[in-house]
Amino acid sequence: MAFSDAEFLADRNPLPSGLDSRLRDHLTFLIEVDQLKTILRASPLAAANRRENDAEHSWHLALMVMTLAEYADEPIDVGHTIKLVVVHDLVEIYAGDTPIYDTELGESQQEREEAAADQLFGILPEDTAMKMRALWDEFEARETAEARFAKAMDRLQPLLLNWMAEGGTWRTPGVTANDVRARKAVIGDGSTALFEAAMHLIDEGERRGWARS
Amino acid sequence: MAFSDAEFLADRNPLPSGLDSRLRDHLTFLIEVDQLKTILRASPLAAANRRENDAEHSWHLALMVMTLAEYADEPIDVGHTIKLVVVHDLVEIYAGDTPIYDTELGESQQEREEAAADQLFGILPEDTAMKMRALWDEFEARETAEARFAKAMDRLQPLLLNWMAEGGTWRTPGVTANDVRARKAVIGDGSTALFEAAMHLIDEGERRGWARS
Ligand SMILES: [Ca+2]
Repeated sequence: MAFSDAEFLADRNPLPSGLDSRLRDHLTFLIEVDQLKTILRASPLAAANRRENDAEHSWHLALMVMTLAEYADEPIDVGHTIKLVVVHDLVEIYAGDTPIYDTELGESQQEREEAAADQLFGILPEDTAMKMRALWDEFEARETAEARFAKAMDRLQPLLLNWMAEGGTWRTPGVTANDVRARKAVIGDGSTALFEAAMHLIDEGERRGWARS
Repeated sequence: MAFSDAEFLADRNPLPSGLDSRLRDHLTFLIEVDQLKTILRASPLAAANRRENDAEHSWHLALMVMTLAEYADEPIDVGHTIKLVVVHDLVEIYAGDTPIYDTELGESQQEREEAAADQLFGILPEDTAMKMRALWDEFEARETAEARFAKAMDRLQPLLLNWMAEGGTWRTPGVTANDVRARKAVIGDGSTALFEAAMHLIDEGERRGWARS
């Protein structure tokens, strides 16, 4: 499945011969995904003066699922929901991060990400690739309670970081508090309580002038 | 449980009043853990010229559990194993990273980490704190198949990064290839196949002069 002319990170320092070929493919994939740590998001960290990367974000979502599962409107399988958030941004290794308020990039996003999924999961043995792809498809489709809650975490997490940054990306030129509210509506598909908390933070942020009225 | 004079990250920009107090504690914890993204490990990234942080490392382990579970010697609950790796380094937010080849710091490690666990999990409502603490204790005790496999991932992941760095921390002054082999022995408690692969990488690294003979 991988593009035949693709160069993977592991090709820079090939794994030694003598490894079982199936395991070699698994390890090649696990080295390739190191690049998720270099994909920068728009959100500023709360704990340091720099932007967050996708690997840090994905870890944070995993811990949020574990911490906030009790607020899910429907019962969720916590372990399965964590799997969804662990893989949800992997395609950005090749497709890049698409900032939520960038509508132009947003238009080509699906096509770019599908191609990226083929390329990245194509490194894996076919059965493992199908499992990973199924998790990513499930996250994107939001048709299961787990996917809806995972998506809710994906939208709630930057809101916490933006709160700590007194606005953060809410201050992006042209973005208003109502734009922020619209983007956060999907939190309500996973959790009414967390949606209400999100709206409370945005209301208060707007009142303080951290988001345009 | 939290030290009464502790200042948490969220105190720098307090969450607005009007949030349910249980949810406020959950969110305060989730903001506090942003600091895991600032705890640097000794390992160099494969994808960039900098050291890895604990949040990135924890995410990488989660994906490794999902990708490599088939190599576990005993059946494991993959979702539960991921939970263990997601929380396994949280105590380092207050206790710091203890490099594996630093024996002096290693001696005080348990005491420092227990105090850190009390402080960090103490932010949470008591029932949530107990769940988090139980996961961390399970990881540390290595008495379940899931904990043994999680620990195996924790030792295998930097080995992959060190391979890509043509030695990385294997080149630490005073460390020999046999020291590296000794540190990686616990991989065999989780997976014979991955232990053999690890030894193969170290043998080859030693042959190439990336680790001292
Ligand atoms: Ca995301």
